[in-house]
Amino acid sequence: MSTSAPLLVSRRISSLAPPSAAWLARARTHLDGLTKPIGSLGRLEDIAAQMVSIRQERFVEPLRKAVYVFAADHGVTAEGVSAYPSEVTAQMVRNFLSGGAAISVLAKQHCVEMHIVDVGVDADFEGLSGLLHHKVRRGTRNLLHEPAMSESEVAQALKVGFTLAAEAKRNGCSLLAIGEMGIGNTSAASAIAALLTNKPVALVTGTGTGLTPEKHAHKQNVIEAAIARHFPFTDEAAPPDPLDILRCAGGLEIAAMTGMILGAARHGIAIAIDGFISTSAAAIAFAIAPAIRGYLFAGHQSEEPGHQILLDYIGLQPILTLGMRLGEGSGAVLAMPLIESAMALYNGMATFSSASISVARQ
Amino acid sequence: MSTSAPLLVSRRISSLAPPSAAWLARARTHLDGLTKPIGSLGRLEDIAAQMVSIRQERFVEPLRKAVYVFAADHGVTAEGVSAYPSEVTAQMVRNFLSGGAAISVLAKQHCVEMHIVDVGVDADFEGLSGLLHHKVRRGTRNLLHEPAMSESEVAQALKVGFTLAAEAKRNGCSLLAIGEMGIGNTSAASAIAALLTNKPVALVTGTGTGLTPEKHAHKQNVIEAAIARHFPFTDEAAPPDPLDILRCAGGLEIAAMTGMILGAARHGIAIAIDGFISTSAAAIAFAIAPAIRGYLFAGHQSEEPGHQILLDYIGLQPILTLGMRLGEGSGAVLAMPLIESAMALYNGMATFSSASISVARQ
Repeated sequence: MSTSAPLLVSRRISSLAPPSAAWLARARTHLDGLTKPIGSLGRLEDIAAQMVSIRQERFVEPLRKAVYVFAADHGVTAEGVSAYPSEVTAQMVRNFLSGGAAISVLAKQHCVEMHIVDVGVDADFEGLSGLLHHKVRRGTRNLLHEPAMSESEVAQALKVGFTLAAEAKRNGCSLLAIGEMGIGNTSAASAIAALLTNKPVALVTGTGTGLTPEKHAHKQNVIEAAIARHFPFTDEAAPPDPLDILRCAGGLEIAAMTGMILGAARHGIAIAIDGFISTSAAAIAFAIAPAIRGYLFAGHQSEEPGHQILLDYIGLQPILTLGMRLGEGSGAVLAMPLIESAMALYNGMATFSSASISVARQ
Repeated sequence: MSTSAPLLVSRRISSLAPPSAAWLARARTHLDGLTKPIGSLGRLEDIAAQMVSIRQERFVEPLRKAVYVFAADHGVTAEGVSAYPSEVTAQMVRNFLSGGAAISVLAKQHCVEMHIVDVGVDADFEGLSGLLHHKVRRGTRNLLHEPAMSESEVAQALKVGFTLAAEAKRNGCSLLAIGEMGIGNTSAASAIAALLTNKPVALVTGTGTGLTPEKHAHKQNVIEAAIARHFPFTDEAAPPDPLDILRCAGGLEIAAMTGMILGAARHGIAIAIDGFISTSAAAIAFAIAPAIRGYLFAGHQSEEPGHQILLDYIGLQPILTLGMRLGEGSGAVLAMPLIESAMALYNGMATFSSASISVARQ
């Protein structure tokens, strides 16, 4: 019999500790001695210090970067909650692999290994080369009528993420971007955001890939009804269990991302999350194990209204604000050159004493 | 006898036209056909379209990037308006050249040719190799008591910029970052911002490299007094001539940046400006020739309060917001990978038809 999701997760997070506070303090001291006014590199100083606290003695090594894009379909698309038909998920998987998608271009440009993971696309990809085949099920169930996943399915999807995190660790990956593709998955992310943060559905539900106002209102009604079905008695004092939220309202790609984030943090890998969907996975992971926060970088601020709410919930500030709403890990990969710049400045700049530069006289 | 600044500038801008509106429209059409929801790449789409409108048929070529850092001293430092002593300007020039400054590290990391230009440092750099020697004068005059530059000096400094823009063009440079180093130059930039935008000095004056509240108040008083001395009769209806503002309240590095921005735009080179000081030069250039706006990218949003006001004045939105306040061209160079990403997406992504992907059904 397969291990249950709660047991699986509790085993994996038992050795999960936050990044080193001692290395963080050491990094701050080093940054203050570099040839620039104190704090004048702004967020780059925070990013460098956080990377030092994660990588510790290994911070001088160049980063090895990878992006994992998790693809899956969503039963809730039967309700007409997306501007695109669900077959686009499978079409985009092929586009990722043939190099024509945004993430394909960005990963190549920034020297990031790209891995495309089928964790639940409603298509037959048998024999498709270049794809990581981890399909748990051909799409989730329709969360309006039943839990999106069974206990066993959510456990399997989490395990895909744990397995890939261990593989990334073995490959020497030190900075990971997490992305996704799944028509309908902003509905799942909105339900997760409303349930985790106890915010009204209207506040956390956007237009996804581009809905008309009528369809946007319909999408909100579907999410409201799904929440009322699965969690009729929630209140702020007793929020639902994050794994129950994930199972009832999530998606296979969201569960796999949750697993990968928990696993990567446990292995001491820094993780750049992307937009609303990957952040919903990070928020579930954070609710389970708050120590992961120190391993996370928020690549960018998405246009989806629920994204800011989830970033606030975790306590993250986005690196980029470019008005993007694409997913695929695009915003996470775009933030990588900035993370690398922060590290290069940390490692490469002269100090006031080494460069014989006068210090401030106040 | 040397040419006057107004005559020099009017000659240089006579052939300055805005980027191509036809190419901009063509770029928008192309972007809408790429395999992503319409507009979902946000600002990157604007950046790509702007680059296409600037580079036109040359947009498929890889960018050749350079950063020019203009260094000069400021007589107004005698008034105690900066946290650092003015000898730091010269010390930092040596630090740029030896690779220990932030801009040295960033330029190397992002494959950007770095040029350090002495246009007015109060130090003897004779024979210093690696430096572009264009010193007009060892620092400006103290703008509290007299115009910062004479008519001839401002013309010489502008000409340095024009000359370097022509050199950049000859070298095949297609994307330029403009930066500076000059202890005291936030005072000059604040005076320029107040005069160009008719905003109160208090609104456009920050703490520079890190002033105490007392010294910050003193800095504001110095700038107020300088403005009252040079422009006693200004009103909103008749703003002072931008070249007079530059001469009385600017700096040699600011004038050289103004010249380089005007020259680069005339040569069809895209220009990433940096923080408050380089934006003050861009604002002067914009006041002289509004057509330059289409060639400008605002690399980042500085912490200096006058910066946002100047960006609004020109009509630019910053690419990055990282809480930086360093100068040197650092924020401009950090934005370059994003500009390159926008171009790579434009050139590398598949279209809906080429990838056989279903379009939105609304």
